[in-house]
Amino acid sequence: MKLIGMLDSPYVRRVAISLQLLELPFEHQSLSVFRGFDEFRRTNPVVKAPTLVCDDGTVLMDSTLILQYAEALAGRSLLPDEPKALAQALRTVGLALAACEKAVQIVYEHGLRPAEKLHQPWLDRVTGQLLAACDGLEQAMPIGMDQAGVSTAVAWEFIQKMVPEAVPTARYPKLVAFSQAAEALPAFVAAPHGDGTVRA
Amino acid sequence: MKLIGMLDSPYVRRVAISLQLLELPFEHQSLSVFRGFDEFRRTNPVVKAPTLVCDDGTVLMDSTLILQYAEALAGRSLLPDEPKALAQALRTVGLALAACEKAVQIVYEHGLRPAEKLHQPWLDRVTGQLLAACDGLEQAMPIGMDQAGVSTAVAWEFIQKMVPEAVPTARYPKLVAFSQAAEALPAFVAAPHGDGTVRA
Repeated sequence: MKLIGMLDSPYVRRVAISLQLLELPFEHQSLSVFRGFDEFRRTNPVVKAPTLVCDDGTVLMDSTLILQYAEALAGRSLLPDEPKALAQALRTVGLALAACEKAVQIVYEHGLRPAEKLHQPWLDRVTGQLLAACDGLEQAMPIGMDQAGVSTAVAWEFIQKMVPEAVPTARYPKLVAFSQAAEALPAFVAAPHGDGTVRA
Repeated sequence: MKLIGMLDSPYVRRVAISLQLLELPFEHQSLSVFRGFDEFRRTNPVVKAPTLVCDDGTVLMDSTLILQYAEALAGRSLLPDEPKALAQALRTVGLALAACEKAVQIVYEHGLRPAEKLHQPWLDRVTGQLLAACDGLEQAMPIGMDQAGVSTAVAWEFIQKMVPEAVPTARYPKLVAFSQAAEALPAFVAAPHGDGTVRA
């Protein structure tokens, strides 16, 4: 199977790292939804990263859905089975994905429109939501290196690289320590965060 | 458990309908992430709809993650088990969620910023992606009334209510017919699309 998308997307990186943890072999095509729009469109007309092309040619999108497929294929899950533990893990994944979404919205507001089209009330709203998600993740620690851990570490790395001015590092000592430990793991080293360029 | 969010969100509606199909009893609080921001924040500081408050108080967010929890709780899934059939269903869910995301981005661009901050190239981009997602759904028919069917029907209803000018109905006869049949089902009737008001 083939994973398409830039590793500077936390969603693409989340899948790349999880596929390795699941020991599923895959090819990776580093293609931008902006600079590579036309080429991307030939595989997935919706132009969403990550895109996963299954071995039979079926084209999937959305990192959580791709992981559901990958886990079925691997015959094991990166989430706990037992409902109470599952709820805790899914809460953390939800916080991490919300943090990614809000950080992406900040990046897009600055990167994809001219300065005079920037809307400060929107930035203020999503920055507040980003901080609330990071607060939730800091409180959720310790987190295991399952889907919750991968999503959390990937989200924090993305935030630090892309919107460091929005999130005061000193407020999140547990997230910083967890992220540093995660980034030293082989699956993370093998899927390094990209150059962080967003260009329309 | 309690589901929080307005049924004019396709993500909230997707969860409300799926919980009924899974025969899981729940309370629904119709609260807006805009008009009800401060009240929403008291339960979920990230202010994301849908939010699910589990019986033990754990607060979940993200419709797909909430459905993973609900299916574990119900002991059955609204997705096929077999990887090939699963991939087909997840492809459809991915297209439906992408359609929702792009429609929401159009709604937000018009509804959450003054006219002079509207950025036409962004609207053109996401409208093209929305049409590509709808094309994919039309081609994916027939779709069963599992997660794929619920997500597809909810996406189409949202698009028709919120951004009808962006999507030419005549191009999607199968989607129209599928949506009409779905909206007549008890689980859909019990979770009607809201008034579609987005106000900051």
